[in-house]
Amino acid sequence: MSIRLKELVESLGGQLTGDADTQVSGIAPLSDATASQITFLSNPKFRPQVSQTQAAAVILSAADDAAVGADYHGARIVAANPYAYFARAAQFFAARNAIPVIPGIDPAASVDPAAEVAASACIGPNVVIGGGAVIGENVRIDAGCVIGAGARIGAGSYLYPNVTVYHACEIGQRAIIHSGVVIGADGFGFANDGGAWVKIPQTGRVLIGDDVEIGANTTIDRGALADTVIEEGVKLDNQIQIAHNCHIGAHTAIAACAGIAGSARIGKYCSIGGAAMIHGHITIVDHVHVSAGTLALRSISEPGQYTGFYPIAKHGDWEKSAALVRNLNTMREKIRSLEKSIKQLSQQLTQEDNE
Amino acid sequence: MSIRLKELVESLGGQLTGDADTQVSGIAPLSDATASQITFLSNPKFRPQVSQTQAAAVILSAADDAAVGADYHGARIVAANPYAYFARAAQFFAARNAIPVIPGIDPAASVDPAAEVAASACIGPNVVIGGGAVIGENVRIDAGCVIGAGARIGAGSYLYPNVTVYHACEIGQRAIIHSGVVIGADGFGFANDGGAWVKIPQTGRVLIGDDVEIGANTTIDRGALADTVIEEGVKLDNQIQIAHNCHIGAHTAIAACAGIAGSARIGKYCSIGGAAMIHGHITIVDHVHVSAGTLALRSISEPGQYTGFYPIAKHGDWEKSAALVRNLNTMREKIRSLEKSIKQLSQQLTQEDNE
Amino acid sequence: MSIRLKELVESLGGQLTGDADTQVSGIAPLSDATASQITFLSNPKFRPQVSQTQAAAVILSAADDAAVGADYHGARIVAANPYAYFARAAQFFAARNAIPVIPGIDPAASVDPAAEVAASACIGPNVVIGGGAVIGENVRIDAGCVIGAGARIGAGSYLYPNVTVYHACEIGQRAIIHSGVVIGADGFGFANDGGAWVKIPQTGRVLIGDDVEIGANTTIDRGALADTVIEEGVKLDNQIQIAHNCHIGAHTAIAACAGIAGSARIGKYCSIGGAAMIHGHITIVDHVHVSAGTLALRSISEPGQYTGFYPIAKHGDWEKSAALVRNLNTMREKIRSLEKSIKQLSQQLTQEDNE
Repeated sequence: MSIRLKELVESLGGQLTGDADTQVSGIAPLSDATASQITFLSNPKFRPQVSQTQAAAVILSAADDAAVGADYHGARIVAANPYAYFARAAQFFAARNAIPVIPGIDPAASVDPAAEVAASACIGPNVVIGGGAVIGENVRIDAGCVIGAGARIGAGSYLYPNVTVYHACEIGQRAIIHSGVVIGADGFGFANDGGAWVKIPQTGRVLIGDDVEIGANTTIDRGALADTVIEEGVKLDNQIQIAHNCHIGAHTAIAACAGIAGSARIGKYCSIGGAAMIHGHITIVDHVHVSAGTLALRSISEPGQYTGFYPIAKHGDWEKSAALVRNLNTMREKIRSLEKSIKQLSQQLTQEDNE
Repeated sequence: MSIRLKELVESLGGQLTGDADTQVSGIAPLSDATASQITFLSNPKFRPQVSQTQAAAVILSAADDAAVGADYHGARIVAANPYAYFARAAQFFAARNAIPVIPGIDPAASVDPAAEVAASACIGPNVVIGGGAVIGENVRIDAGCVIGAGARIGAGSYLYPNVTVYHACEIGQRAIIHSGVVIGADGFGFANDGGAWVKIPQTGRVLIGDDVEIGANTTIDRGALADTVIEEGVKLDNQIQIAHNCHIGAHTAIAACAGIAGSARIGKYCSIGGAAMIHGHITIVDHVHVSAGTLALRSISEPGQYTGFYPIAKHGDWEKSAALVRNLNTMREKIRSLEKSIKQLSQQLTQEDNE
Repeated sequence: MSIRLKELVESLGGQLTGDADTQVSGIAPLSDATASQITFLSNPKFRPQVSQTQAAAVILSAADDAAVGADYHGARIVAANPYAYFARAAQFFAARNAIPVIPGIDPAASVDPAAEVAASACIGPNVVIGGGAVIGENVRIDAGCVIGAGARIGAGSYLYPNVTVYHACEIGQRAIIHSGVVIGADGFGFANDGGAWVKIPQTGRVLIGDDVEIGANTTIDRGALADTVIEEGVKLDNQIQIAHNCHIGAHTAIAACAGIAGSARIGKYCSIGGAAMIHGHITIVDHVHVSAGTLALRSISEPGQYTGFYPIAKHGDWEKSAALVRNLNTMREKIRSLEKSIKQLSQQLTQEDNE
């Protein structure tokens, strides 16, 4: 389904130059866009591609427009943040192309009579909803999801197939939760008694704010006594583990395979790289960026980027450097011994000069 | 629902000082407990908080009781291991507050006529149980679980929603298995034939002892020819991978995101930190503790704590240290060359002295 | 069910010496095989075990046969690649012992009328198949799987319970997909707008070639605009994350817990070790082997093995070496300073000699 540029600008803003009736049917990168698509320039290094693109229209910044807009044959939309404008334009197309969701509860779903499901919600086959659960307006819960007793799913949220939400957990509005996610399983809490482990019941909840997205097979454990908290706007990639009693600040993004250990507190606007690990009980302030593959062992009190992983090398070279890393103490001792020797030689020489 | 302290002590032991009829309705840390709750002191550094807490009663050790018991207004329970006592007391409250489980098979479950399900078991909607499977007394299997043909689930075990147990695998008594767990998928076994991979059928099983807990989305593969074995009392956190033919000793605890490669053998009473990786075919003796983020490449034959991860730093500092790590060989060569130079200078000086 | 050696050789080739009517009922390692089993010698270091094994027959190479064949009492099958022959023989036994699959759609499955399911396919209880999906001949889809609208599953593929395939994704023939796998969830794509994240709709697909195996709880995200591609013969272990727009070359094997970040391109015949992490947007050529626990940050243009992880040590030793790694710059400065001192001493000495 194609749309006119003026519809886009009416909806998303931006300053349009060129034919407002230009029809575009989708969005693509500068190099791939066809004559029926719109494209975008979000990085000035691609400016030379603007005059070459086949696209019917381009989204770009005022600075880029001033530099290369005149070289371009098609319509231009000047936006303060062309990449964010592209994202919203892509959402605009996706919404147009989406298959309309039909409200209602599939006959193969099992909904407890004591659950409250909004009439506008769409509940798929084999979904199970426990007593006291509250499912908001326009929520979509796909096949095989299980929503525990007393859980709450905010308006406009979308749960893909086979998501599990344990009892009493709460998810805000407009959440997107992908398949295989488990929210509210027991935190890993045990008391040691003579070598064996005694389970500490995990009686807290998971509380998730609005506009949170959670990737496939990510797990977020319920708190031990207090709650695990994910603030609004947090974006979690796939296969992330968030342990009991963590607190993740608003708009923080965490890449796949990262792990956040128990009671860790991560600030707002942080980013945690793929497979990074955050130790338990530490605090990371706002605007911290932890690189991929890095283990953060202690609290971080200053914004900035932090890194720590062993550099890759050809296997033989790594073997040599790893052997030396193990023996760095020996190297330091040798340096100390050299320092002493030189001091002695120097003294000897000075002495001789004075003799 | 509140209980009297004497009920607690009758059930869990401990030496009670104070009013045995004191009613408590729950358990909370020293700093948070209200006048209707019981609290605990498990770490002597929190002794000063005992006189300040609002709690109606405190669980503590004899040593702590001797030190601060007299300063405290409420009832005291002296226990040999206050933290384990706290855990059991919390279980006591949780059991009191639990919604009773109603035995029976949900009409939306699919149970093979050749499966054996105890009358006291509770089988949720959309559960599928294969032929020859045996489900013990008081087992609870929540919605969406799939139990393969010939699998066995021991008495008192609880499988949360959407767990998959493959055919012929066996789980002991009182297991707690969280959502998304997969037990008994094929191990990763292939023979290379001219670059392509030929699958080796995985015909072993997974055998899990009593009192094992398994966290959300953890996977335990079936053995290739022999079985994968998890002994009694093992506690596994979320998103752990245990490969084919591993053997995990009793009461070992493994934190989230750890991976145990094929045929690794881990002793009893070990702990494996989050995201640690244990290489295939190695043996780790009892009472070994592998730190988070550490890769154990070779067998460990001596108890103790083992660590190996790159220390985190500001990104610029890491870049410098990583570049030096890559070139440690050059540093060593320089040190050797310095040693030679000093030896020569020293000889030269001695020679001159003798001239 | 036992078979005669001649049946094996007729099916799999190899040169048989000894009684072709020898009956064998299964396959086991040299040390474990009983008198009714066949065994194999794939590594010359186990040659001494051949004369000791109880097995009725042994698979071995021509070289091993020349060396130890005469010492052995039973029948021998000489094969070019005994380990691959073992794998195929094990498949032969497994096929004989397999419970026959009955084609048809379980009454508890929900199949959209607009889906196309081959009559020979076996669709389990609670499976949900969306409109426009195409399920090939002899496909087996176990309980609880959800196949999105327009997805395609090639002939002979086997999906274990609780697999999720999102809309429009395509899987080739003879795939084996284990429980908890999620194929086609949204890639992790957002534009930052003043700190908050704007979702970029992920409109690409996942395309998977023939003969691919995917381990339990592995996730493969759909592409952002273009597709994520897994070529034929790729073998993926458990809990692997493959991000949007990755391209994995044919016959590459990836071990458990590895992560491949967005738009990474991995060549053919590569192996990626457990928990290894491949950075986004990098290219790795054919025949590269990345060791376990290694983070590949930059493209790799030369075949070979690459490694990078911190060596494990007793905790106290690690603390010392880690402290030194953080301060390598200081060590380098000291070495430089020593070099200067020695140069000065040397000059001083030379000068004195000349005086």
